[in-house]
Amino acid sequence: MNITDGNRFKKIYDSQRIKLEVRISELFKDKEPVSLYEPCSFIIQSGGKRLRPLLVLIAARAVGGRFRDAQDAAVAVELLHNFTLVHDDIMDNAEKRRGRPTLHKKYDLNAAILAGDNLLGAAYEFLLKGCHEKDKNILATFTRGLIEVCEGQSLDKEFETRDSVLIDEYLVMIQKKTAALFETCCSIGAQIGNGSKAEVKALTGFGRSLGMAFQLQDDLLDIMAEEAELGKMIGGDLIEGKKTFLFLKALQLAEKPEDKKALQNVIDNKGIQKEEIDAYRDIYRRLNVIEETEKEINRYTLLALKEINKLKNAEFKAMLEWLANWLLGRNK
Amino acid sequence: MNITDGNRFKKIYDSQRIKLEVRISELFKDKEPVSLYEPCSFIIQSGGKRLRPLLVLIAARAVGGRFRDAQDAAVAVELLHNFTLVHDDIMDNAEKRRGRPTLHKKYDLNAAILAGDNLLGAAYEFLLKGCHEKDKNILATFTRGLIEVCEGQSLDKEFETRDSVLIDEYLVMIQKKTAALFETCCSIGAQIGNGSKAEVKALTGFGRSLGMAFQLQDDLLDIMAEEAELGKMIGGDLIEGKKTFLFLKALQLAEKPEDKKALQNVIDNKGIQKEEIDAYRDIYRRLNVIEETEKEINRYTLLALKEINKLKNAEFKAMLEWLANWLLGRNK
Repeated sequence: MNITDGNRFKKIYDSQRIKLEVRISELFKDKEPVSLYEPCSFIIQSGGKRLRPLLVLIAARAVGGRFRDAQDAAVAVELLHNFTLVHDDIMDNAEKRRGRPTLHKKYDLNAAILAGDNLLGAAYEFLLKGCHEKDKNILATFTRGLIEVCEGQSLDKEFETRDSVLIDEYLVMIQKKTAALFETCCSIGAQIGNGSKAEVKALTGFGRSLGMAFQLQDDLLDIMAEEAELGKMIGGDLIEGKKTFLFLKALQLAEKPEDKKALQNVIDNKGIQKEEIDAYRDIYRRLNVIEETEKEINRYTLLALKEINKLKNAEFKAMLEWLANWLLGRNK
Repeated sequence: MNITDGNRFKKIYDSQRIKLEVRISELFKDKEPVSLYEPCSFIIQSGGKRLRPLLVLIAARAVGGRFRDAQDAAVAVELLHNFTLVHDDIMDNAEKRRGRPTLHKKYDLNAAILAGDNLLGAAYEFLLKGCHEKDKNILATFTRGLIEVCEGQSLDKEFETRDSVLIDEYLVMIQKKTAALFETCCSIGAQIGNGSKAEVKALTGFGRSLGMAFQLQDDLLDIMAEEAELGKMIGGDLIEGKKTFLFLKALQLAEKPEDKKALQNVIDNKGIQKEEIDAYRDIYRRLNVIEETEKEINRYTLLALKEINKLKNAEFKAMLEWLANWLLGRNK
């Protein structure tokens, strides 16, 4: 892919994104009760890449559909995504999200639970606008996505309190927690775009592998990014005692007794203190965990690209490739 | 309606209920992660009248449809209802539900939030099984129900902290919080049963008024029922400082300074102590609030019955009447 392609795709992304932002800014305008819709507005208007709606839109185009037919579904997946963010932030005791306070901190727990539930209701309303006879499959795909996200988040919380987690178990967890929604986006878009069975399958597979790469990159950024760019505290995963890919890989590779002990401390104490983050970053570096994670991210990205190899629409196949590469280079 | 009718309807109810219980008992069997599905099983198998699924089933029959076509949608509304219970119990700090601990008490907050979300996902999965081309309207009805429940619950929490609430505002709140789902049940059933527009409208109106009567009865039982029968603490609404119909009516009718002061205390202190419940029950009695509430319940019940007056199916029209009267006489 050359630079001109990248510029063109960035333009398409930007123009679709503006349309999306306009629709999103109008979503909960002047709705009552304010105590419900203000938190909904606050979270949905807090920015973010709008990656998931973009996947819906490109997937629809990639199989010959039109942007405009997929725009309601695009809003729907963004709403679904924000629903998961709000509830996950409660469960993770997160203080910040995209550089702003999380809903349960800015408002309270009740407001956050309800805003999440309502975002989900709104998601379905939008999904219903955008589809006709194919309702059933599209809605079933969407629902499966929702249930997998719940299952994944449940495993994630479960792993925090478990003494040992296998890397394979971790991969199943992020497949559900993160990749399932990427998969859902691509599948829904492809279905709305009237893709063939093979096309829907290819895009679904692309979404899943891309989602895996995305979550691994997320684990990596949590410890390696700059706090100002990430918009939340660095090392939050270690502080919460989360068994990320990096942590599990470190456990696997550690040989020196002091490294083993330091890692075991995270498990025993269910997390670390903020002051200890630098020390753990050094352990990760020393054990080559950073490179191992990057290798895994690349592996999933290549898997994703392989899936869409046979897509006929060269333009949007190239745009999906651009997207995958763009995510690889992200810093937040 | 004579006693034989009542017996026959009770038999129909019992036999449909057994089928429903069997399906419900299998809903989350052997599903993983256990940390997600065990709480889901616990709440959905904690009994209850299964009133909402029954509404779906009868509404379908009342317009000429078959029970079996509405059974998936019946499971769906019960799942949706349980989703709201789990999240509402968190927001209300409720300790008990149907005589058992609430999910956030038995497990923890995270498990309860997620179980609720997942019950909702499961609800959609079932709804999708049960419908075909009419998907869009049915799903839109269902979604509207979900959003109204969120709005109602949000108003309910908002009212707790507001100094004054009008009775009309209260009625709007319970229309959303409770009646909307009753309305949804009847509407979905009628749509699945291929009812005419007029039939769907009549059953929707029936559901709404029945739901209003149900919630008012709920407010009444909260202070007048026996604790063992109710399965939760008596007077919980007053303890939480909820502005129920009874409370707002008492405020309206109070003339003596000591009554006014006692009621104002509930507002100022955002609730009362357990030991004070008997004193407030006496105030309610003295002010005729109990009778006023019963009058309002009867008014809504009559409105509900009027709506279905023109239904052609005499048998299931009679069963809906039986149901409404049965709810009037309930003690939990």
